[in-house]
Amino acid sequence: MKLLRVGPVGAERPALLDQNGTLRDLSALVPDIDGALLADEAALARVREAAAADDALPAIEDGGVRIGPPLGRIGKIVCIGLNYHGHAAETGAAIPEEPIVFMKAPDTVVGPDDTVLVPRGSVKTDWEVELAIVIGRTARYLDSHEDALASVAGYAIAHDVSERAFQIERGGQWDKGKNCETFNPLGPWLVTADEVPDPQALDLRLWVNGELEQSGSTADQIFGVAEVVRYLSQFMTLYPGDVINTGTPAGVAMGRPEPKPYLRAGDVVELEIDGLGRQRQEFKDA
Amino acid sequence: MKLLRVGPVGAERPALLDQNGTLRDLSALVPDIDGALLADEAALARVREAAAADDALPAIEDGGVRIGPPLGRIGKIVCIGLNYHGHAAETGAAIPEEPIVFMKAPDTVVGPDDTVLVPRGSVKTDWEVELAIVIGRTARYLDSHEDALASVAGYAIAHDVSERAFQIERGGQWDKGKNCETFNPLGPWLVTADEVPDPQALDLRLWVNGELEQSGSTADQIFGVAEVVRYLSQFMTLYPGDVINTGTPAGVAMGRPEPKPYLRAGDVVELEIDGLGRQRQEFKDA
Repeated sequence: MKLLRVGPVGAERPALLDQNGTLRDLSALVPDIDGALLADEAALARVREAAAADDALPAIEDGGVRIGPPLGRIGKIVCIGLNYHGHAAETGAAIPEEPIVFMKAPDTVVGPDDTVLVPRGSVKTDWEVELAIVIGRTARYLDSHEDALASVAGYAIAHDVSERAFQIERGGQWDKGKNCETFNPLGPWLVTADEVPDPQALDLRLWVNGELEQSGSTADQIFGVAEVVRYLSQFMTLYPGDVINTGTPAGVAMGRPEPKPYLRAGDVVELEIDGLGRQRQEFKDA
Repeated sequence: MKLLRVGPVGAERPALLDQNGTLRDLSALVPDIDGALLADEAALARVREAAAADDALPAIEDGGVRIGPPLGRIGKIVCIGLNYHGHAAETGAAIPEEPIVFMKAPDTVVGPDDTVLVPRGSVKTDWEVELAIVIGRTARYLDSHEDALASVAGYAIAHDVSERAFQIERGGQWDKGKNCETFNPLGPWLVTADEVPDPQALDLRLWVNGELEQSGSTADQIFGVAEVVRYLSQFMTLYPGDVINTGTPAGVAMGRPEPKPYLRAGDVVELEIDGLGRQRQEFKDA
């Protein structure tokens, strides 16, 4: 299923995209798309049943409707750094021996086509297309990749927008350049795991002002989805409604020769992952 | 006012500690102690009014009642690293030129006297008593320390429990050793800012099994409360219900000669900050 949330900021309602490309309102069936729903097998089964009989659900006119992030009440966003061989190489970093872990606050999340703000004082705002994992079952000290995959509810596109000077040149930890407002567009859809048979075989692409800048595959990940979830569960408990951004392939601005093409107000970034849809953000000054 | 939340995990109800030391139930007045309440001046005024006329509120028998964290629905927890001259010195680190910023997930928060779990595989679980700031008004690109202090709703004790091997020896960013389950006891009270006239003149103390291990003052902070809030607001937006852990004074296990006295199951840690109450945690194996 392709689950999503549509409507004004902060007042999104749950919906699904049916097999004919029609948006269907789920409000009568579930209160929201969130961790509580993803952990509730009976409620999910009701949604699946309604999805199979499309006409049971009222259609939403999609002319002009805003698409919000496909998940409400996100608990935490855990991010994996330098997780593609190509990206590690372009930044001059060694291949990590273990996953590098940092965090974004859930309040950085916006819809897939919402405006992204270049922070005041920023000169190094960069792009990063990423496969996001959405957790559906509590993951704690997992032993196997099988258990790890069983805790995944689905996948989405995340744009892990990053300010490189804040991240690297301002003393210490990366989080400082990862948590600016609007820095995590998510969606358009939460695609349930049954529709993503191999999360290590997805092509990711990102364009800036129409030019293709990133084109990679999750096959190039150093630590795949199952290993990332298993590994993280040794250090923290993952709960339904948590999100993991699994890292970005090669092609970011930081990896280019000088002058590096960092983002500025007026730039338009588009992102795509096979089967997970497409995002488009216009950048403006904060 | 001293605001708190009492009752079973996940079902805490709002309360206040009155001037006579009696717990008073606020359930009839406000749904919870959270960012929504802290941002709602009219609701806060109603609580203040009722607090002044203690008898208006039903007393809670405090025999055996569990005290939860004093804040529900925490948005994010931003932490400042190496923020005391003494602690920077004991770890062998240089004095930071700018605040070092890392993050803890809100799901690490437990009540002030709840059990803390030593993670599986941990050999370097460490203690850190900290002054926590609770945000009451949105802080975004603030210009002045006055505006920064105006965005502070109050203060609490935070225990920033840390696994040093996970934090420092496992590749990359500190967050990996800061986000284990139960790693952020908070409370007992959210003390409103009007009762803390000078946040840079608070003594902090921490005992392990009855031995005093940390004894410092917020006067030793490198970046004080007002500067921390002003600074962070340049990099991220702080919202009502966000928490900032402002760093720990000297005296952690990591700063001791070998063999360093890291925490193990059975240890009892007690923490105290002037005017903010006292915590007591028993450590157990995860």
